[in-house]
Amino acid sequence: MPNPTLLECFDNPSPNRDYLIEHVAEEFTSVCPKTGHPDFGTVTLQYIPSQLCVELKSLKLYLQAFRNEGIFYEALTNKIADDLAELMSPKWMLLRTDWTGRGGIRSSIEVELGIAPD
Amino acid sequence: MPNPTLLECFDNPSPNRDYLIEHVAEEFTSVCPKTGHPDFGTVTLQYIPSQLCVELKSLKLYLQAFRNEGIFYEALTNKIADDLAELMSPKWMLLRTDWTGRGGIRSSIEVELGIAPD
Amino acid sequence: MPNPTLLECFDNPSPNRDYLIEHVAEEFTSVCPKTGHPDFGTVTLQYIPSQLCVELKSLKLYLQAFRNEGIFYEALTNKIADDLAELMSPKWMLLRTDWTGRGGIRSSIEVELGIAPD
Amino acid sequence: MPNPTLLECFDNPSPNRDYLIEHVAEEFTSVCPKTGHPDFGTVTLQYIPSQLCVELKSLKLYLQAFRNEGIFYEALTNKIADDLAELMSPKWMLLRTDWTGRGGIRSSIEVELGIAPD
Amino acid sequence: MPNPTLLECFDNPSPNRDYLIEHVAEEFTSVCPKTGHPDFGTVTLQYIPSQLCVELKSLKLYLQAFRNEGIFYEALTNKIADDLAELMSPKWMLLRTDWTGRGGIRSSIEVELGIAPD
Amino acid sequence: MPNPTLLECFDNPSPNRDYLIEHVAEEFTSVCPKTGHPDFGTVTLQYIPSQLCVELKSLKLYLQAFRNEGIFYEALTNKIADDLAELMSPKWMLLRTDWTGRGGIRSSIEVELGIAPD
Amino acid sequence: MPNPTLLECFDNPSPNRDYLIEHVAEEFTSVCPKTGHPDFGTVTLQYIPSQLCVELKSLKLYLQAFRNEGIFYEALTNKIADDLAELMSPKWMLLRTDWTGRGGIRSSIEVELGIAPD
Amino acid sequence: MPNPTLLECFDNPSPNRDYLIEHVAEEFTSVCPKTGHPDFGTVTLQYIPSQLCVELKSLKLYLQAFRNEGIFYEALTNKIADDLAELMSPKWMLLRTDWTGRGGIRSSIEVELGIAPD
Amino acid sequence: MPNPTLLECFDNPSPNRDYLIEHVAEEFTSVCPKTGHPDFGTVTLQYIPSQLCVELKSLKLYLQAFRNEGIFYEALTNKIADDLAELMSPKWMLLRTDWTGRGGIRSSIEVELGIAPD
Amino acid sequence: MPNPTLLECFDNPSPNRDYLIEHVAEEFTSVCPKTGHPDFGTVTLQYIPSQLCVELKSLKLYLQAFRNEGIFYEALTNKIADDLAELMSPKWMLLRTDWTGRGGIRSSIEVELGIAPD
Repeated sequence: MPNPTLLECFDNPSPNRDYLIEHVAEEFTSVCPKTGHPDFGTVTLQYIPSQLCVELKSLKLYLQAFRNEGIFYEALTNKIADDLAELMSPKWMLLRTDWTGRGGIRSSIEVELGIAPD
Repeated sequence: MPNPTLLECFDNPSPNRDYLIEHVAEEFTSVCPKTGHPDFGTVTLQYIPSQLCVELKSLKLYLQAFRNEGIFYEALTNKIADDLAELMSPKWMLLRTDWTGRGGIRSSIEVELGIAPD
Repeated sequence: MPNPTLLECFDNPSPNRDYLIEHVAEEFTSVCPKTGHPDFGTVTLQYIPSQLCVELKSLKLYLQAFRNEGIFYEALTNKIADDLAELMSPKWMLLRTDWTGRGGIRSSIEVELGIAPD
Repeated sequence: MPNPTLLECFDNPSPNRDYLIEHVAEEFTSVCPKTGHPDFGTVTLQYIPSQLCVELKSLKLYLQAFRNEGIFYEALTNKIADDLAELMSPKWMLLRTDWTGRGGIRSSIEVELGIAPD
Repeated sequence: MPNPTLLECFDNPSPNRDYLIEHVAEEFTSVCPKTGHPDFGTVTLQYIPSQLCVELKSLKLYLQAFRNEGIFYEALTNKIADDLAELMSPKWMLLRTDWTGRGGIRSSIEVELGIAPD
Repeated sequence: MPNPTLLECFDNPSPNRDYLIEHVAEEFTSVCPKTGHPDFGTVTLQYIPSQLCVELKSLKLYLQAFRNEGIFYEALTNKIADDLAELMSPKWMLLRTDWTGRGGIRSSIEVELGIAPD
Repeated sequence: MPNPTLLECFDNPSPNRDYLIEHVAEEFTSVCPKTGHPDFGTVTLQYIPSQLCVELKSLKLYLQAFRNEGIFYEALTNKIADDLAELMSPKWMLLRTDWTGRGGIRSSIEVELGIAPD
Repeated sequence: MPNPTLLECFDNPSPNRDYLIEHVAEEFTSVCPKTGHPDFGTVTLQYIPSQLCVELKSLKLYLQAFRNEGIFYEALTNKIADDLAELMSPKWMLLRTDWTGRGGIRSSIEVELGIAPD
Repeated sequence: MPNPTLLECFDNPSPNRDYLIEHVAEEFTSVCPKTGHPDFGTVTLQYIPSQLCVELKSLKLYLQAFRNEGIFYEALTNKIADDLAELMSPKWMLLRTDWTGRGGIRSSIEVELGIAPD
Repeated sequence: MPNPTLLECFDNPSPNRDYLIEHVAEEFTSVCPKTGHPDFGTVTLQYIPSQLCVELKSLKLYLQAFRNEGIFYEALTNKIADDLAELMSPKWMLLRTDWTGRGGIRSSIEVELGIAPD
């Protein structure tokens, strides 16, 4: 399973202001633990930073590290959310995965942490 | 009528967190009980799991079991909602069906159970 | 003017639950009472049923009966809303008409009855 | 059946040049002779004029005159093509009708007269 | 500047009910007072009528009367809102202009009067 | 396998003219003979009639008769093309099937008979 | 009627090579000579230059000069084509106007001069 | 770094009314301070003016002045927001940047100042 | 490099007729040999079969086998074309890859073998 | 003006086969030599390689080098085409630039070298 130490952060340049940051990774792939076939999807991260922001290139490498991991949608989404929350302690965070269809059904999982912005 | 025992579930991997799961089945078909002609539509399930999650492949087989059933839109939507609520006892659930048009009119039915997320 | 007795209803199969029904008629046409030219539009009905639901085929025939009627947008929208409310006494209802443009201006009229769902 | 004398024409302002004229009527409606239900579609006329062009408002009124006519797709398309060809004797003409779906099948009919432009 | 007396109204056919009327004029043009070049945009009017509704053809002629007027986006939007509010005294009104881009920047102005509907 | 006698035809109303007829059935479903899972797709028929045209309602019933048949894409497409060619002896015909994806791959099959129009 | 002397040109920078230039003016407006109401449309110019190219800003001013001219679609399209051909003597030219709908019918006119590119 | 004195303003023509102004610059470019490669994005400004409005052409020149600046997304977004807030003291302001993707991830940053409109 | 023996075929069910088969794999991924970063794209195969057709599931597994291969776009496209041509000896074949962008540039490669259909 | 020596090439991996390569750079920017304002556009290169292919990263850097150059659309398009033809001597090449609008007119320039593929 990808090591959260792959993730790096930098100091929030405007720590006294609540503002929104969004990163959308449209080329995510992991492996279905049941069938061994690849899964494809989009990972969306939205957050209001506290003292720290996740560094973009380290986020890319961390997400790429799931490439050959066998992991279910629900577990993967919660793990990414946990690793990022542990890293940054954001004021608010939303982590969403949207998966391309399998057998005529497509799925999404969405985890939200902290108090939602208005 | 499809037997709800077709549906299987697994333990929610993050039972202490409220999060959203969505499955969208875009290739649903059943039969109009009046005319005998096939109906085509999309079934959307959104829920916040409690202790259990519906297993995806069993959901697919359960939905496929409506293929040759004659049943009205309203009754079908309420039955799927009831079967899934009975199975999983989710904290919140929304079940929506969107049907392709007949005679120039297209229809949707939406059932919501529990307290809606913000 | 179309007779509201064209509309038929059936018993709500789940009267103890609040749920949403939507019918969208995309091929509606009536006649402009001023110019005699045809008007084209979409009629959207959304409602939360009480004891009764409008039967879909009768709704189609009722809407088709406006085909050669000369009637203004505002009056037509209110009449359809009144006829359906009289028929079904829904808990909540929204009736919207969206008209294709005339002379570079396109119009919509929306009537809402009862307390809106969250 | 609409009288072709509804159609009027005017002199081609550039009779020595081959050029293309297109009129697309997106709000066409007639009646299905079998079921009595309305049909909705788009009528597209493309032509290279010879000495005459069809006048736009007369074309609109001619097409509106099909509103309450019961006529099959194939016959209607050929009749409009015949009436316009008789009226204008164009160097080339294409008449196409595209119909909204009925029972899950949508149809188009296309008649071409004269030698197609490159 | 267009004379507001160009605008006419008619009696609201359902004065005892709050409902929404929308008119969208997608072919609006005026002139930039600085450069003399034409501006192109869309004017959207939404309102809940009180005793009066604006007559559609008079609205068209009023909007066409801006064709050769040099006027800034902000002033124009407020003037149209003022003229319509003066005319109809609506319960609620929203007037929005959306302008095609100039120099890589496109603009919108939105004025709202009265208490917004839910 | 659906009986081609389900298909009916009628006399071409303009047999002396070459023109194009298109029918698109967007709600086609059959069964995968390997997995038993349903396949979904679109069937497109284009043809230039000779003496006969296929009747639309009979075409719908014939296509619906594949609903519970296990048959491969290639074989199905060739069978429909053969049945229609046998029925109508068209001057030219194109039969195309477009299938929704399975396992990340979507397929189409296209059979053309006779000399293509320019 | 706009004076063709509004149009300016510059020397083709690559006169020994056949290449394509396209200018699309999406905000064209003139006036209907019958009704006095404004017409809106798009003017598309494609050409292969010979010795001269039309200067872009002069093209814009020339097209703006039709703003208050009453002129039919067919005449306008031929006039613009004639003025530009007279100005530049291009090896090949296509001039197309696409008009927004009036009374449910939208129109296009297309003039081509010289031998079309492959 | 662009000098905020590039920005000019003018008096709000309707200072007694709360209304919304939006400017969207779709052709923004700056430089990544890490790699030296250009970044491309859209800058969206929404605000409710108090006594002053930003002048459109000066906003364009100010935004163009970032063309060769090396600056991170987060810092850039906060700087533009600060400069505009300092200039106009709006009642409410939202500044959003949406960036085209880099390495399969696309980002957005959104800063909001003052109390959000309903 | 994936072994072409992963590919299996079956007998063309209609070997006496020229018809078109298309398979589109929208979830293809390999690795950039220079940077080690993943590449994502779509692989499109079109062919007119001779005696043999490629079996769909084996095609999927063959394409999945590129998942961890470092290979350039041009070489990969030619290899897949060569392997499929060797396997099936089709009458005509087109193999196209469309790649998501890298550094603001997106690429496509297209190999065609045999004589193109009309 | 960007130095063509920025462009590098590599040996065509399949020199005995005619095949198509396409690179689309959607984030191109240069400067208008008249006004000094930035121009934004897309550069599309299609070619059939002979012995050499252009290396993708060098193409990116070469195109970025136009960032602060003042140059007209027509001259720029011909220069890029000349530099690439000089570099690779392709069997066939098409170079197209599509520019975002200025003053309501958007432009494209297309240069083709060699004999077009069928």
